[in-house]
Amino acid sequence: MLLQNLTIVGVGLIGGAIGLAAKKRGIVRRVVGVGRDLGRLEEARRLGAIDESVLDLAAGVRTADLVVFATPVDRIAEQILDAAASCQAGALITDAGSTKGAIVQAIAARLPAHVQFVGGHPLAGSEKKGVEHAHADLFVNRWTVLTPTDKTSADALQRVSAFWQALGSRVRLMTPVEHDRALAMTSHLPHLLAAALAGILSSDWTELAATGFRDTTRIAGGDPTLWTPIFEHNRAAVLAALDQLEDRLCAFRQALVSGDASMIDQLLTQGKRMRDALAS
Amino acid sequence: MLLQNLTIVGVGLIGGAIGLAAKKRGIVRRVVGVGRDLGRLEEARRLGAIDESVLDLAAGVRTADLVVFATPVDRIAEQILDAAASCQAGALITDAGSTKGAIVQAIAARLPAHVQFVGGHPLAGSEKKGVEHAHADLFVNRWTVLTPTDKTSADALQRVSAFWQALGSRVRLMTPVEHDRALAMTSHLPHLLAAALAGILSSDWTELAATGFRDTTRIAGGDPTLWTPIFEHNRAAVLAALDQLEDRLCAFRQALVSGDASMIDQLLTQGKRMRDALAS
Repeated sequence: MLLQNLTIVGVGLIGGAIGLAAKKRGIVRRVVGVGRDLGRLEEARRLGAIDESVLDLAAGVRTADLVVFATPVDRIAEQILDAAASCQAGALITDAGSTKGAIVQAIAARLPAHVQFVGGHPLAGSEKKGVEHAHADLFVNRWTVLTPTDKTSADALQRVSAFWQALGSRVRLMTPVEHDRALAMTSHLPHLLAAALAGILSSDWTELAATGFRDTTRIAGGDPTLWTPIFEHNRAAVLAALDQLEDRLCAFRQALVSGDASMIDQLLTQGKRMRDALAS
Repeated sequence: MLLQNLTIVGVGLIGGAIGLAAKKRGIVRRVVGVGRDLGRLEEARRLGAIDESVLDLAAGVRTADLVVFATPVDRIAEQILDAAASCQAGALITDAGSTKGAIVQAIAARLPAHVQFVGGHPLAGSEKKGVEHAHADLFVNRWTVLTPTDKTSADALQRVSAFWQALGSRVRLMTPVEHDRALAMTSHLPHLLAAALAGILSSDWTELAATGFRDTTRIAGGDPTLWTPIFEHNRAAVLAALDQLEDRLCAFRQALVSGDASMIDQLLTQGKRMRDALAS
């Protein structure tokens, strides 16, 4: 057993999966879920993701060894700073937000000294939301990025790292800035593209949208209220990734306009080579 | 039984699935497979997709009631015109090519009068290729587009339509031009985007490319030797679809640059609404 008391703030898909995984793997004695909707928390309890439902953030974190915030990225920093005052001395705080720079920066200067924070991001998710889609193996063989700074103690980093590994995840360390640049390319730009492509499809042609279109646009089904703040947090890196994509689209366009079959083939082959390297 | 003799030219994923489906559903007495590689044809025979392997196109089509061409789009028209001279009177010819305008036009003026041609495109496929990935239910509940012209007889259209429906497919009629415009948006542009996105991923970040990136780029794994001719055939419509996409990307860019959260939300919501309408 790694922990006595784990508190999860935000018990949706990710928060729910953390609770299910922690309980299934026996790494925690008791899991408290904090949220704004008692009905949803009680559903999480019925599903076995948490042991106790708490609406009040201060009350929910009071006895926790570890608090994990799995709320939308625009709420995480403020909630952590609110909660910190109620945490016991030595409590560890982490999060599961899809952006790191803005969150880590907002917390750095203002976190009280009796708690420690390590930014985190488990690269697992779905276009589906809600604890009803959570499962205990969501993090198995996935990567969780942790983003320590100069202020992060080795002990705090080690404990948060051990937690994610105990949930089945692999852990990779990056700076917050590096994380945001990478995720702009691997997650945020793909989301933008999927939404753009789905958004321009004429409704006359929906029945002609077969497997390829459906795969390519699947993540556009994600919740805009979660994704809009991600784009706001990470707009500089997303714009840079979009620049790179537009250069590549421009190369495709020129090859099409000039009927340059060998250039089309070359661009397709570069894409295939990288995609094949990812497998599955 | 719908047919005595079916000949499939090009026994890969699509051609193989046609053979498997036709035999499983008992709509044909005998299936001849025509190809360039005897080893691959024999594999198709072992897998039950064809009854007989033939390397010579003229010999392979001689007794066919129906000949289906499932070869790369840049070879279909020429092969059909080559084969037509060897077909018996009344033979019906169709194809499974992903583009229709160039193929239908190339055939229209030159097809001998003793055969009939109806252009077709089953909207089923995969980034995987080869008869080893074919299965008998590939067309079930999928759409096949048929593209009759002024010259197409009602009888020929009815027979080809009945054939695809007997394989489990639903049939929709479009003009060749309309087909190519629609497929530019629902298939060719998504392929271009997937290849562009996969092609700009830095190899440092491959382990950060999770489910979302993998779904969005899956079709980039398709074979460039099949896709380059599709882009060549349909470049005007693909360029028009790319224009539409770039307008939408420009709207996203402006919303990001100006930090317009409600516009970001609106663009994401439009994408989600259309994607949700597709389901699965």
